[in-house]
Amino acid sequence: MLTENNYVLPKQKEACGIFGVYDNGDNLDVARLTYFGLYALQHRGQESAGIAVNDKGTILYHKEMGLVPEVFDDVILDHLKGKIAIGHVRYSTTGASVSENAQPMVAKYRVGQIALAHNGNLVNAAQLREEMENSGAIFQSTNDTEIIANLISRNRILCGNLKDTLIKVMATIRGSYALLLLTPKHLVAMRDPNGIRPLCIGKIKSSYVIASESCALDAVGAEFIRDILPGEILFIGEEGLESVMPEEKQPSKLCIFEFVYFARPDSIIDGASVHEARVEAGRILAREHPVDADLVIGAPDGGLNAALGYSRESGIPYGHGLLKNKYVGRTFIQPSQGQRETGVLIKFNAMRNEIQGKRIVMIDDSIVRGTTTKRIVQMLKDAGAKEVHIRISSPPYKYPCYFGIDTPSTKDLVASKYTVEDIRNMIGADSLEYLSLEGLLKTPKGAKCGFCTACFDKCYPVEVKDE
Amino acid sequence: MLTENNYVLPKQKEACGIFGVYDNGDNLDVARLTYFGLYALQHRGQESAGIAVNDKGTILYHKEMGLVPEVFDDVILDHLKGKIAIGHVRYSTTGASVSENAQPMVAKYRVGQIALAHNGNLVNAAQLREEMENSGAIFQSTNDTEIIANLISRNRILCGNLKDTLIKVMATIRGSYALLLLTPKHLVAMRDPNGIRPLCIGKIKSSYVIASESCALDAVGAEFIRDILPGEILFIGEEGLESVMPEEKQPSKLCIFEFVYFARPDSIIDGASVHEARVEAGRILAREHPVDADLVIGAPDGGLNAALGYSRESGIPYGHGLLKNKYVGRTFIQPSQGQRETGVLIKFNAMRNEIQGKRIVMIDDSIVRGTTTKRIVQMLKDAGAKEVHIRISSPPYKYPCYFGIDTPSTKDLVASKYTVEDIRNMIGADSLEYLSLEGLLKTPKGAKCGFCTACFDKCYPVEVKDE
Amino acid sequence: MLTENNYVLPKQKEACGIFGVYDNGDNLDVARLTYFGLYALQHRGQESAGIAVNDKGTILYHKEMGLVPEVFDDVILDHLKGKIAIGHVRYSTTGASVSENAQPMVAKYRVGQIALAHNGNLVNAAQLREEMENSGAIFQSTNDTEIIANLISRNRILCGNLKDTLIKVMATIRGSYALLLLTPKHLVAMRDPNGIRPLCIGKIKSSYVIASESCALDAVGAEFIRDILPGEILFIGEEGLESVMPEEKQPSKLCIFEFVYFARPDSIIDGASVHEARVEAGRILAREHPVDADLVIGAPDGGLNAALGYSRESGIPYGHGLLKNKYVGRTFIQPSQGQRETGVLIKFNAMRNEIQGKRIVMIDDSIVRGTTTKRIVQMLKDAGAKEVHIRISSPPYKYPCYFGIDTPSTKDLVASKYTVEDIRNMIGADSLEYLSLEGLLKTPKGAKCGFCTACFDKCYPVEVKDE
Amino acid sequence: MLTENNYVLPKQKEACGIFGVYDNGDNLDVARLTYFGLYALQHRGQESAGIAVNDKGTILYHKEMGLVPEVFDDVILDHLKGKIAIGHVRYSTTGASVSENAQPMVAKYRVGQIALAHNGNLVNAAQLREEMENSGAIFQSTNDTEIIANLISRNRILCGNLKDTLIKVMATIRGSYALLLLTPKHLVAMRDPNGIRPLCIGKIKSSYVIASESCALDAVGAEFIRDILPGEILFIGEEGLESVMPEEKQPSKLCIFEFVYFARPDSIIDGASVHEARVEAGRILAREHPVDADLVIGAPDGGLNAALGYSRESGIPYGHGLLKNKYVGRTFIQPSQGQRETGVLIKFNAMRNEIQGKRIVMIDDSIVRGTTTKRIVQMLKDAGAKEVHIRISSPPYKYPCYFGIDTPSTKDLVASKYTVEDIRNMIGADSLEYLSLEGLLKTPKGAKCGFCTACFDKCYPVEVKDE
Repeated sequence: MLTENNYVLPKQKEACGIFGVYDNGDNLDVARLTYFGLYALQHRGQESAGIAVNDKGTILYHKEMGLVPEVFDDVILDHLKGKIAIGHVRYSTTGASVSENAQPMVAKYRVGQIALAHNGNLVNAAQLREEMENSGAIFQSTNDTEIIANLISRNRILCGNLKDTLIKVMATIRGSYALLLLTPKHLVAMRDPNGIRPLCIGKIKSSYVIASESCALDAVGAEFIRDILPGEILFIGEEGLESVMPEEKQPSKLCIFEFVYFARPDSIIDGASVHEARVEAGRILAREHPVDADLVIGAPDGGLNAALGYSRESGIPYGHGLLKNKYVGRTFIQPSQGQRETGVLIKFNAMRNEIQGKRIVMIDDSIVRGTTTKRIVQMLKDAGAKEVHIRISSPPYKYPCYFGIDTPSTKDLVASKYTVEDIRNMIGADSLEYLSLEGLLKTPKGAKCGFCTACFDKCYPVEVKDE
Repeated sequence: MLTENNYVLPKQKEACGIFGVYDNGDNLDVARLTYFGLYALQHRGQESAGIAVNDKGTILYHKEMGLVPEVFDDVILDHLKGKIAIGHVRYSTTGASVSENAQPMVAKYRVGQIALAHNGNLVNAAQLREEMENSGAIFQSTNDTEIIANLISRNRILCGNLKDTLIKVMATIRGSYALLLLTPKHLVAMRDPNGIRPLCIGKIKSSYVIASESCALDAVGAEFIRDILPGEILFIGEEGLESVMPEEKQPSKLCIFEFVYFARPDSIIDGASVHEARVEAGRILAREHPVDADLVIGAPDGGLNAALGYSRESGIPYGHGLLKNKYVGRTFIQPSQGQRETGVLIKFNAMRNEIQGKRIVMIDDSIVRGTTTKRIVQMLKDAGAKEVHIRISSPPYKYPCYFGIDTPSTKDLVASKYTVEDIRNMIGADSLEYLSLEGLLKTPKGAKCGFCTACFDKCYPVEVKDE
Repeated sequence: MLTENNYVLPKQKEACGIFGVYDNGDNLDVARLTYFGLYALQHRGQESAGIAVNDKGTILYHKEMGLVPEVFDDVILDHLKGKIAIGHVRYSTTGASVSENAQPMVAKYRVGQIALAHNGNLVNAAQLREEMENSGAIFQSTNDTEIIANLISRNRILCGNLKDTLIKVMATIRGSYALLLLTPKHLVAMRDPNGIRPLCIGKIKSSYVIASESCALDAVGAEFIRDILPGEILFIGEEGLESVMPEEKQPSKLCIFEFVYFARPDSIIDGASVHEARVEAGRILAREHPVDADLVIGAPDGGLNAALGYSRESGIPYGHGLLKNKYVGRTFIQPSQGQRETGVLIKFNAMRNEIQGKRIVMIDDSIVRGTTTKRIVQMLKDAGAKEVHIRISSPPYKYPCYFGIDTPSTKDLVASKYTVEDIRNMIGADSLEYLSLEGLLKTPKGAKCGFCTACFDKCYPVEVKDE
Repeated sequence: MLTENNYVLPKQKEACGIFGVYDNGDNLDVARLTYFGLYALQHRGQESAGIAVNDKGTILYHKEMGLVPEVFDDVILDHLKGKIAIGHVRYSTTGASVSENAQPMVAKYRVGQIALAHNGNLVNAAQLREEMENSGAIFQSTNDTEIIANLISRNRILCGNLKDTLIKVMATIRGSYALLLLTPKHLVAMRDPNGIRPLCIGKIKSSYVIASESCALDAVGAEFIRDILPGEILFIGEEGLESVMPEEKQPSKLCIFEFVYFARPDSIIDGASVHEARVEAGRILAREHPVDADLVIGAPDGGLNAALGYSRESGIPYGHGLLKNKYVGRTFIQPSQGQRETGVLIKFNAMRNEIQGKRIVMIDDSIVRGTTTKRIVQMLKDAGAKEVHIRISSPPYKYPCYFGIDTPSTKDLVASKYTVEDIRNMIGADSLEYLSLEGLLKTPKGAKCGFCTACFDKCYPVEVKDE
């Protein structure tokens, strides 16, 4: 694969999932558990996958481009013997999806080896890299992870131990991070002081499991214990758990988009059910923007739960109006412009018998560029819908995310340039309404946290210099 | 890949999808259209894929193990230039999934080249092969397709033309077949006299498209014209369409399981909507087997439509209670028995917040071995369901299919050995009920055909000698 | 890989190597022995490799495009358990080097399974195919092997047993063939009545080994027994060896080009050492065409042995004047025309210190197109050679081979269009001389056979109709 | 591929080849030229290959495990557009041959991007790494190259420019290095002060080419200019060539083993022809250790040139007595012990007709473990040799190399543990003699350098602490 060493290009925005296991005498197969855990987190990143294990002080690892089941086989997993493991799945937006950026990152520093797996985005990465370059560091990737590894190494010289080192690192980096560290003796989890990206801990017998989302705990049969707290550094070792909260408490700012779209619906994040939040969003949307219609449908898969909520609240029957082809590979031949015009449809199809002659409310979680929604509206009308009303279960998506959700630049966010009426017109819908921000904030019921809503209101939790 | 020339093993039961294009002066990209068509039929076979085109009298082809997007890329499709194309996706059950059996099959016979793509299963294959072997034929695969190709070749010697040849072949073969032939000048479609497997024709501008299901017509922007009739041989060439119906009319016996499970819900087969049939099955099931409950859920993906019907008819709210991991690759590491016991869950997870404290009705399309249903019942109970009632939207699946649906042998079909009460007990459900056969037969509304229901009642449409 | 079903193209000329083992109670690892045997025969074909074994009546096989070490690994060889094995390596000239043509070919016919591996070329293939097509046979490849398999199947119906069948087949096919058959109980070797292609038998303990060349017997530690005789059919089974010679004795016509170029020098064919023949060719060449020079060099690798003979006979010192890059892969980027002109040299380099200021005699085995020789002459002159005299250790290569040596068509054979003086002028040599045919025929010392010399004198051993 | 982060294991000893092009307005295809250059250097490393180019300030690169023709294809080379290129081929001995260690290494440091390709071995690597780790550096591979890149980065902070930086780096690193640097504007070549590894410069039109050996200059049609001098740093840029020799002149210590075995015979290194040195070694060997014999043969390929020298000097005829299979892949199935005992021979075969009844002198370049020589002696005796006399064209190989030749540890070097007579006895030869060191030192005729002979006399050119 051709690789571009593209430091001159803007840094990639990454969405990722992380998973770790510490075997506390239960003789677990840590590599396979990590494999199953990563597989449950596959929705957080489909580009590369990797697992590192600590085998009696030596770190063994395997990482490659591809889905989890493509990257690993039994032979490889059999070789990844150890007591502690961390794993990573990764997605990046730009064309330069390079194997050098695959994680976990494994490095040697003064006191031994270390492996890191990171989900999030540092907003002072450029500055930190420049500072370290000014004292001689080199960088072989565009990953934040390599920056964090360098910071750990440099601070470890000054601090007497890993704990003080990580406290120092936390004081230095700004942005979102859910981070796993594998050392010869410890599994360490860190979550940024705003708790922007999720991270939770569970238990299998006497052993510990850490995951981006609770669905991965379920997948490996682990019992959920609690969320890693914003600003917490959690050490797991022979001596048990040790939690450190070095920073002053900051307002918690969990990414609300995890509830809107990114997380898996069967996960529970910081106390709130993702599925329930989506259904509730549909209910509130129905109250905020009712419409006379015959059928509520969801855009698969993101809009299905909210559609159910809309239906339940409005009393309009819920139906399956769209089918999504599930055999989506990483490379796919695109139809030519001519073929598009003559109607070649790849991802979706409408259920004509369900749609025909009806007034349809279609719920989706968000509109980013608007092109897919436009095609779907057309498809529904071609299938005989009398009216198509679009309801979006979140506010207009106007501002790019700098904290770990993969979004296009502002100029491609249709809501940052056009009014709702303009967008309605562009997509050809009979009506278009969005959930209010106030409404959305009520959806993660029981959440023990505050939220980052910057993509809707530009209130970034940490100052972002224009990139 | 190691290949076993396994004529001593029982013949594989195959499920397949076929697609063909005849470009009637519209300058279509026939290979790419076939690619998109096969992609829409991917659910009918995920093991191998192939496309053959007629390039000015020479047949070019490419076929390999893998999903459609894995087997083809732009370079290959660019080479497959031609005016007529046929394509095939294939699935087989036994371990011996060999590249030699991939289709289309391409061969030369007396009058030129021919390519064949076949969906179905001949019940007199062994006898035909033996007869031809007795006069010297050799066979290099275990495919029925190779038998049909040999029959065409042998009859072509005796008959003066392809039409009489195919009439003769149709008189010879018994069983299910939806068949596409590519000759230097024609695309030919054949459907067995009982019409067991579906096949339909559509139109793009002046050109013709043939597909196993109408969803593939939609995918390429083709307008549905009609189903190929049971017993019809349809020639498409420069002179237009020519239809031949050589056999005496027989009772039509479309596979009812296409409606229950196999076909894509957005397809319309022999006049009936698959999606509508499934919703209707749920409705009838609710009438036949009502239950006091709080939530109706479907087993993804097969039970979702029927669950909707059950909910609509019963008034019990519909919900999303189970999540299915969609990143299913062809090879997947299985959890060990120990890991299964400690709760490693790969394919499904329950939505705890939706399930907890409720009496659940879960709808599935069928129970084959019973193991998956048992695990799901347990999962729902673990998620806090007070009661779990299973409703199956088809009758007990008791008898193996010899006509193109991949089923285990009788001994592995749980309903062929146990009573409904026994099965209920085994899977741990609070109640278990099946749709009646009478009920099921009412579901394909508007269908212009009769049905094969042999998997439920052993009434095979064509005599099957015990294999 | 894109495959062209190219019956309309001229049939490929194939060069191949074959190998077989019959384990007579010695508990040999027949697949691995075949692997080592094929590896020793790799020079006879680098395009595809395959092994078939008889595992208690079922034939297992594996074949793929690639070199022997690329096609097989330990996992595959471990699966190929059996008592009898045959293997094949293959090369073809045209672009259509397709996996469908890889051997061994495995088929089922009336009485069971059979596998075939063939080296040679039938001259009545088209006619035989036509005859069989006229009675209904189909062909899925362009291989002669498929024709022979069909003939065996058809004749087996008429004859009561395999022996009579093969006698009938031998009476039917014309051309060159060294053939191995694997049946559930026998390993059978056949050599055409003229013995055009080599085939020999050896012994390991009580077991038998058959190979295209004796170097493969050496490779597996087998003791050479004898050559398979022209016109012999040799059955190896539980009952021991049985030899049949059904045809009237015909003049033996071993391909002389095996000695000139094709066979490995450490082989002994029909009683004569290949290496010795090549050294002797150099000696006679020195007597026929002496020259005043300072150094004799060989074109690597084909001319090295003859160069040694020329040196020994003439007394002119032997030297290493050219180096050939040995890391030759199957795909290699070719230099552009511009790069060629500026001197990019891929395969060869001259040893300047050895060449400079000297009069060079360079020996090569043959000149086919003349382009390589021209480049080498230039390279030697650039390296400072005062004179470059080319001596060819065979007569001018004028006529295409129809019996298993891969040659260009007549129009590309430089010697069929130009005089020796013209060629000398074209390649820029100071002199150019060829070995006489009389001289060449003296080189395989001790040979117990006659020779086919058709590439030099157009005396084809079997009538060839213009293709 | 599973990767071990094996800092706890001994560092790998690497043999490598490097190549670079600076296009000075000639519009060269720098990536393809590097491809052809690396292909000519393939004998220096068969494990991984890589090319980096500077495309208007951005470095593009591609590197992978495999041979040069396997790693690159036309699509990749077409993407590697630029004005400057460097390339690398690599070999390592230990099992941990990992893709992370492939070169060129590409990194960003304070002033921009840099790519490095290195042949050699630093003896103070561990100390340098420790020092840098002590000030916070991390290391992601076991390569010396990563150490050099870090040193460049750190010194670049202190020095005002690249020239002073590299002068500082040269003063810091100890050991052998032939190094190429690619910066946005320059191609830089460095050779260690002892000149242990070779490096030379040539010219194509107005452009410059740097290569480990002159054979790679020949391969791309470049004219040899001169060797890079020991201790020289050569900058090639828009302003032309600038040479810096910062260190005090040290005794030159070119690796003598380049002449004995490692370099390609058509190369000229530091003024001496490799081929001529090998022939001369044979001549001196014949004078030092004559023997009454009938035939001189060389062990292919390393002993062939010296065998020619021995023959010329002694008057004993030269012959081709051994054949080496040239289709050597990277993975090859090894025969079992049982198969070895029954005589399975993979790499070599004897020319029985040349050997039989003769007293043989066999020349080889060196004996490392002795196992291959033992097998060959046995093979010659089995082929009928009356006597087998081994003559080695270098002194006993007793001490491991720490400067870039891949050697086993001392305990596996047979000459470090046994006397010549013991070794003779072990390998079963009738006599065994080695070239004297004095004799060897006379062989690189016209060399303008001194030599490192540490593998023979333990006189390491730079102090090596016991590892």
